Order: sequence, then C-alpha cells, then structure tokens
Amino acid sequence: MAILVVGSVAYDTVETPSGRAERVLGGSASFFAVAASFFSPVNLVGVVGQDFGDEQLAAFRGRPVDLEGLERMEGKTFHWQGRYSRDLNSRDTVCTDLNVFEFFQPKIPARYRDSDVVFLGNIDPVLQRRVLDQVPKPRLVACDTMNFWIHGKPEELRKTLERVQILLVNDQEARELSGEWNLVKAAAAIRAMGPRTLVVKKGEHGVLMFTDEGFFAAPALPLEMVFDPTGAGDTFAGGFVGYLARTGREDDVALRQAVIMGSTMASFCVEAFSLDRLLTLTRPEIDARYRVFEKVTRFDGL
Amino acid sequence: MAILVVGSVAYDTVETPSGRAERVLGGSASFFAVAASFFSPVNLVGVVGQDFGDEQLAAFRGRPVDLEGLERMEGKTFHWQGRYSRDLNSRDTVCTDLNVFEFFQPKIPARYRDSDVVFLGNIDPVLQRRVLDQVPKPRLVACDTMNFWIHGKPEELRKTLERVQILLVNDQEARELSGEWNLVKAAAAIRAMGPRTLVVKKGEHGVLMFTDEGFFAAPALPLEMVFDPTGAGDTFAGGFVGYLARTGREDDVALRQAVIMGSTMASFCVEAFSLDRLLTLTRPEIDARYRVFEKVTRFDGL
Repeated sequence: MAILVVGSVAYDTVETPSGRAERVLGGSASFFAVAASFFSPVNLVGVVGQDFGDEQLAAFRGRPVDLEGLERMEGKTFHWQGRYSRDLNSRDTVCTDLNVFEFFQPKIPARYRDSDVVFLGNIDPVLQRRVLDQVPKPRLVACDTMNFWIHGKPEELRKTLERVQILLVNDQEARELSGEWNLVKAAAAIRAMGPRTLVVKKGEHGVLMFTDEGFFAAPALPLEMVFDPTGAGDTFAGGFVGYLARTGREDDVALRQAVIMGSTMASFCVEAFSLDRLLTLTRPEIDARYRVFEKVTRFDGL
Repeated sequence: MAILVVGSVAYDTVETPSGRAERVLGGSASFFAVAASFFSPVNLVGVVGQDFGDEQLAAFRGRPVDLEGLERMEGKTFHWQGRYSRDLNSRDTVCTDLNVFEFFQPKIPARYRDSDVVFLGNIDPVLQRRVLDQVPKPRLVACDTMNFWIHGKPEELRKTLERVQILLVNDQEARELSGEWNLVKAAAAIRAMGPRTLVVKKGEHGVLMFTDEGFFAAPALPLEMVFDPTGAGDTFAGGFVGYLARTGREDDVALRQAVIMGSTMASFCVEAFSLDRLLTLTRPEIDARYRVFEKVTRFDGL
C-alpha cells in the first residue's frame, strides 16, 4: 500500500538548549517519508534547489522512498531557522527563506497516481486539492495544516477538508480552525467539516484522537532528554499514516495502534537533531518502544 | 483504614466562563474528605469561623467523615475569591482572606491518632510536621504543597518531605521544587528528597506518576463542559488516597488504579461549582466513569 506524501523538503538551522545544527535536512515531507518508510513504500513529491546535494538525498537511500517526484528547481532550497525556548515548548522562527518552495506546484508522476494513501503535508490548501485532483481514487486521505492557512485561506481550507478523512493538527490549530476553545466542541466542529477522524497533537502532553467511536487519549513518553523537537509532528504523522497503510485498515483498533506508532516514532525523532535518530533506527527498537507505551499506560480494572 | 486529612475548610467565591458562585463551600480538606469518603472513613482536621453554618456542614453529613477535629474559632472562616481565564487553564486570585486559618494550629483528637493513612493538605510545612508528630505510626503519608511554601520555607519543606511517601503536586510545582525543567529529572530529584512516589498533576493533560517501578501516564478525560476547576486537585487527591486506603496496598498495580480513581473523581468535580457534583455522586457512576478511562486509553499490541 504505497503512500503519496506532498510537503516541504528543506534545510533547517536549529538552536535548542542542547546545541545548534546548521543547514541540516528538514521539511515535513522528509520527516514523514523516513518515518513512514518503516511500514510502507513512500512516494515523495516536493521541490529542492540546486544547492540540495547527494549528502541530503542519502537519508532516503536504502529505504522504500521513491524520489521521482522530488523536483529540482533553479534556485535555492527552502531554509527555516528557529530557536527553541528553554522548556522546548515554544520556538521563535528566526527566518524563513521559502526560496524555490514559494513556486512549488506539485506534479504527481504517473506511477504515483495509484497510491492508496495520500498525506497532504502543510502546504497551501489550493495546492493540496490539486494533488487530490491528480490521484483518482485514494483509499485514504490524511492532511496537515497550520494557522497560516487557517487564517489566510479559510474558504480554500474548508474545500480541501471536505475531501479529507483524517486531519492531524495541534491543539491550538484545532481551536483556531473551529473557533471553539473546548477541544471536545472543537473536534465536533472540525469533524462536521469533513474529516471523520481528528488527531490532536499536544506535544509533550500526548495525543487525543476523535473518531466515530469516541475518543482515544495517548500520552507522550516523559523523556529525560529532548534534544530537538523539530519534525516530531511530521514524524508522528509518518508513523501514524505509515502504520495505517501497512495494515490496510481504518477501524478504531487500527487507528489507536497507529496513534501509538506515531507517538513511538516521534519519541525517537526528538532524541537528536534533524532526522539523525530516525536514520539509525531499527524495527526491533520501534517494537520495544511501542511496548513501553503499553507498559506506561496499562492499569487494572476495579 | 481511616484517613486523617489536615487542610483548609473555606468559603470560595468563584467566577468561571460558566457563571459565578458566591461564598460556597471550598477548601482542600473539604474536597479531599468528600471524595475520599466514597472509599474509606475520613478524620478531618481543620478550622472554621463562627460564620460557618449548618448548611456547609451538611456536605459531610451522612458520610463517614468525622468532624471532631474541625475546630470552630472566634472570627471568620477562610475566604478565597478567584476568577478563571476563558480556557480555564489559569486563574487570578481576587482576594485571599485567611481569617481564622491564619492562626490554625492542627490539634489531632485522640481517637484520630491511629489513622492508617495521613494526607497533609497544602499548609505550612512546619504544621504538616506537627501533625505527623501527633500520629505515631501511619502506614502511609501523602502530602500536597504549593509554590508559596516551595519558595517561602524551602528548608522546612525538605524536612517534611523526608517523612512523606507520596507527594502530589502540579507540573509547575514539581519544576520549582526540584529546580529542573525536565519532568523526568524533576521527578528523580524530588524522589531523592524522600517521597518514593511522585504524582504530577497536569490538569487537562492528565497525570504522570513516578514510582520505583518507572512511570505511569494517565489522561484527563476531554470534557465538553468544564464548569469550575476549583478543587479538582484536592478531589483527585481524595480519590487517589481514598482508594489506596481502601485497598490497603501501595504496590504499582494499586497506585495506578488509584491514579485513575483520582482522575475519575476529579472529572466529576469540575462538572459543577463547589462540591455540588460530588454530593450527588453514586458509586455506580464512579465505577462507570472509571471504565470510561479504560475505554479511552486501551490499545492493542502489535
């Protein structure tokens, strides 16, 4: 079950209390693709500039990540620079150089068009719909978005959401998209816009998922060492969507397992800068971490 | 297994986005005692003024709450007035009139002295120790504290913590007490001060518990209607300590169940002002809500 992901591939410069990383591989599609590739083949659509080298591409090699859709354009690659607060719960963007990403027009290679699952990374909702127009019959469409589009293109975002089954956003975005402070009310409002399943990412406080069958609450692992939170949300999405693609199911049992798998992958992501930890990760490590989530959440009945 | 609780009994005036309640029953010992009384007899030690009437005492009647230790002093009862933010995650104290509570010297009635379990509500750590001096051999001592004592009487608090097995604080208090931002490091530092078990309350984000056997993460229920969060932490403590007293055990299985029972009781507390919801609560409702926690946290292995 191949996954089509459309999103950013970027250079990140990141400062955290633990250190600084200069022009390392980043971007939503990068984190997503590597995380999802542990479970399912990934077809990547994105754009980089002529400064994007073999060293960066190496992250995808040896993995079932198809790069035919990674366009190389005249100009420079998207560069994001950010600085995290001491508690890692907030960050300031120092600069955002969109460069070639400003002119990104997703072109879906012919052999990607029968992808079963589509993940629309956080890009202009107009472009997200153009991607869907090029993929005739996906089994499942999952989508990310952000405040910039919630406030900047609300009507376009609504049209996109009508074609989405699973929306993944953080708690603040859920509140702003719905206009409701209470997350239960926010979830009801968002699910009425189209996505039957809403996954609310709360960072260190875990994840809430709202489905037809009610809600599911998963913690984040309390980690002694959070090195760099950059990409944790996209890595969560990669583990979540990757796991769903692998199982071929979307029932509540599979969705809950997928949330834990997404949380598992995200818990590794934050252990190092960039994709570094994901690149050394093994399947036995993933399975062991999944079992840690079982261990720390289990309790007996009365 | 009787529980001795020492803490405040107060009048609260509360404003939330849902409304306003004027001079209703509040105080840590009140919420704790009523919540714990569903599981175990409670011996209450506190102080009220001459303005504290039969109407307020009615909350404890018909429950196994012994009021011999509720002293009535010349003067007025402690009055707290607070106003919550729109999202209910922060509150401003409008005024705190300590009144008779300023002169509170806990006197433990003779027949309370063989209480098996002691809960030291959030009072001066010097007074907390004086309580322990009057109870020869409790099986279990649980304790609450707050920033005021963490910064105002750090040495005294340390001496008290050496005699405590279970500390219940919120995440901010855990950070300030330990001087560590990271909660895993904070927990290690606090557990080295005495309490083998640390329960970190995170409000709408649930609870983390750190024990000899590792940690346990419990969500809070996402509620459509949070009416008034006042007393939720004390109600959690009442359910948690009450459940432990009833089981007579302190192993990891019982501690985890106690966290869920505390969360269950707190989820009712916020549904109405003051102790109103706790006063109509039945044991079948409690058991059903506990099962909701099971339902919303369960997921299958791989």
